[in-house]
This record gives sequence, structure tokens and C-alpha cells, in this order.
Amino acid sequence: MKLIIAIVRDTDDQAVIQQLINQGYRVTRVASTGGFLRRGMVTLLIGVDADKVQAVIDLVRDACRPPSEAGQHRATVFVVNMPHFEQI
Amino acid sequence: MKLIIAIVRDTDDQAVIQQLINQGYRVTRVASTGGFLRRGMVTLLIGVDADKVQAVIDLVRDACRPPSEAGQHRATVFVVNMPHFEQI
Amino acid sequence: MKLIIAIVRDTDDQAVIQQLINQGYRVTRVASTGGFLRRGMVTLLIGVDADKVQAVIDLVRDACRPPSEAGQHRATVFVVNMPHFEQI
Repeated sequence: MKLIIAIVRDTDDQAVIQQLINQGYRVTRVASTGGFLRRGMVTLLIGVDADKVQAVIDLVRDACRPPSEAGQHRATVFVVNMPHFEQI
Repeated sequence: MKLIIAIVRDTDDQAVIQQLINQGYRVTRVASTGGFLRRGMVTLLIGVDADKVQAVIDLVRDACRPPSEAGQHRATVFVVNMPHFEQI
Repeated sequence: MKLIIAIVRDTDDQAVIQQLINQGYRVTRVASTGGFLRRGMVTLLIGVDADKVQAVIDLVRDACRPPSEAGQHRATVFVVNMPHFEQI
């Protein structure tokens, strides 16, 4: 499995979370700030099967509004291997 | 080493943290929310030797109360490989 | 690439973030607490090329003040492999 760590703006996180839940994914939300200006960001933790990574990245891209400033992105996505996942 | 990312309810985190510290583990706590209802959750970061992963998972299971709702879990545990760990 | 998860005291995080940004790194900041005393900590997420890991660890060490208590550290650094990184 893979752990997806997606960082989105705090104006987009509710749309992303709603879409993730609609598609059956489980997500944990962590309030965050980005860069020196402490812009409001949200870090999302999503554990998924490896074959779902691209679908989740596409979902995040579609649910986030385009950035208002040049050079900015909708989201930053880190994907790490997760050899062990357990719901206990 | 392994990085354990454990997500527990915010009514269980103090019991889990106390047990972890009693057993000599170091833990970092991040306030979080889960799902669309923004239920209060806590994300715990714990770096451990690979041979301690199961002991930590068992500790988390024992320290969390059973979920009150059917279909819920006590905790979600992500384990990722951590080739490099440093206290500086 | 690598995902660096650095945990620093909340009296040092602004200096670390400023240095990271000065050096061209992107960083996400998550308010955290450490241990049972709930000391104020900050968890920083930094995605970097593998050959930059040591430079970032050195930067964190240099930007954090020495710990005031014996047995404490300036920072804890977790480094995990990140096979996939995307800005979307």
C-alpha cells in the first residue's frame, strides 16, 4: 500500500475531503501552514492500494481550484511506500 | 527503522501517549480531524526499531477504548520504512 | 526523492523555516506537541532530492538553538523514501 500525503490550500480542503469520502477513501486532516507567510494549508493523510494512487492524485487536482498566483500549484502530493497498514 | 503514524480518537490519545512514554518511546502529537464530520482525532508520530513495530501496535490497541459505533476502529496505523533517523 | 519530517521546538521553527526558504526549499508547518508534558513542537514536512538530505539536516541543526536541558536534542529528523512527488 501507499501513504499519500497531500498538501492543499485551506480553501480547497473541504471539497477534496468530500470527494475522497464520496469515492470511499478514508482521510485524516491536519491543519498546517505553508512557507514563511504562514498561508493556511491542510495536510491530508490517505492510505490507499498502490493501484489507486493516480486516481487519488487526479481527484485532488480536480477538486482544488486553480491557484490565483502565478508559480503556485493546486497541491503538493508526497507518496511513500507503506509496507504495513492496519486498522485495529 | 520504521516510522509509525498512528491515528487515534482524541479521547484516547492521552492514554496511548502515557503508555508509550512509560515504555520508553518518544512520540509527537498532532491534532487532527477525521472524515467529513471533522471528528477529533490525534495523529501520533513514533520512530522505532523494526522489531518494536508489533509491540507498539499492540500497545495502541490496548490503550484505546473499543469504538462506540459499529464499523469503526480503535485506531489506524500506517508503518513506513525510515532509512534515516537522527536526533540532532 | 526523500520526505524529511523534522520535529523542532516551537521557539526554533521560524528560524528553521526562514533558512529553508532562503535556500530554496519548500516547507509545510504543522503545530505539534511532544511527550507527556505537551511541550510546543513543530513538525516540518520537506520534500527534497536525495542528495540534499544532509544539507537540510545540517541547516536544521544550525538554525535550532542548543537545548536548555541535558538529554534533550535540538531536533528529531525522520527521513523516508518518496518514490513519487508531484506538484499539481
